[in-house]
Amino acid sequence: MKYGIVAFPSKKLQDLANSYRKRYDPHYSLIPPHLTLKAPFEADENQLNEIVIKLQKISKSNKPFPLHVYKVSSFEPVNNVIYFKAEINEDLQKIYQDLHEFGDQPPYSFVPHITIAQKLSHSEYSDVFNSLRMVGIEHQEEIDRFHLLYQLDNESWTVYETFRLGKE
Amino acid sequence: MKYGIVAFPSKKLQDLANSYRKRYDPHYSLIPPHLTLKAPFEADENQLNEIVIKLQKISKSNKPFPLHVYKVSSFEPVNNVIYFKAEINEDLQKIYQDLHEFGDQPPYSFVPHITIAQKLSHSEYSDVFNSLRMVGIEHQEEIDRFHLLYQLDNESWTVYETFRLGKE
Repeated sequence: MKYGIVAFPSKKLQDLANSYRKRYDPHYSLIPPHLTLKAPFEADENQLNEIVIKLQKISKSNKPFPLHVYKVSSFEPVNNVIYFKAEINEDLQKIYQDLHEFGDQPPYSFVPHITIAQKLSHSEYSDVFNSLRMVGIEHQEEIDRFHLLYQLDNESWTVYETFRLGKE
Repeated sequence: MKYGIVAFPSKKLQDLANSYRKRYDPHYSLIPPHLTLKAPFEADENQLNEIVIKLQKISKSNKPFPLHVYKVSSFEPVNNVIYFKAEINEDLQKIYQDLHEFGDQPPYSFVPHITIAQKLSHSEYSDVFNSLRMVGIEHQEEIDRFHLLYQLDNESWTVYETFRLGKE
């Protein structure tokens, strides 16, 4: 099975992200707006218990972190994903590192973000990015939990379990 | 905000349900296949903590229950929802009752089910129901958790928290 670990921001920020994703993100219906903490990874179902125990330890030994989303950015030229960029901070970096002590090492440095557009044509990309960058974003909240998800055959994601930061 | 409480069955059963929902259920992209344990209810965000504490007590004082899905049925003539019917059992009934000790009382008796089709035209309904009833369903598993979800503006659902049955 394919698993992933994400944090869902508040309903307010999800609704705002969805107002863009609806038009510009073909993954719109597969998963709610999210901050990826560990990229999708393959694991056997019989490893699941072991993973859950690791995640319980990680959630307990970390604490809620501030999420400050402060600009619209893009991964171009690597790819044309457009996202709300979140400020990195020690607490968030620590959670990310802990989550990467098992499984594959991250293929690139951590850029915390919430995707709002992807897989656009080249011409559409430029228009959308310029327009969203002008609108901008400024939002703060606290994230106190993350979720372990698994992917269904139709590529949508189901939550398996929630882990509350700083709690048993 | 609007909240709901559901159990997600195994990936295997979700994939099977989705193979029908994709064609016959307009809610297909709003939530993964699920067994509703408490119908959607309105609550203020400031009541959320209190609700979570209630759900922690309920999950702790109940235990995992067997899910036996044994036939394709329908709510006709009330409505034309087609579903995988699950056998009622004491453990499941107890969880349902406990979850209805707060908020509104259920407007009808509990028929545990996983929806696979709804909002079909009358003629389509008859064809689909007859064909799915012939195919049938026979599946057993154990459910060891339920989830509290909230609804976004686009009517999709995000998981807020998982509660493991029989655990703290």
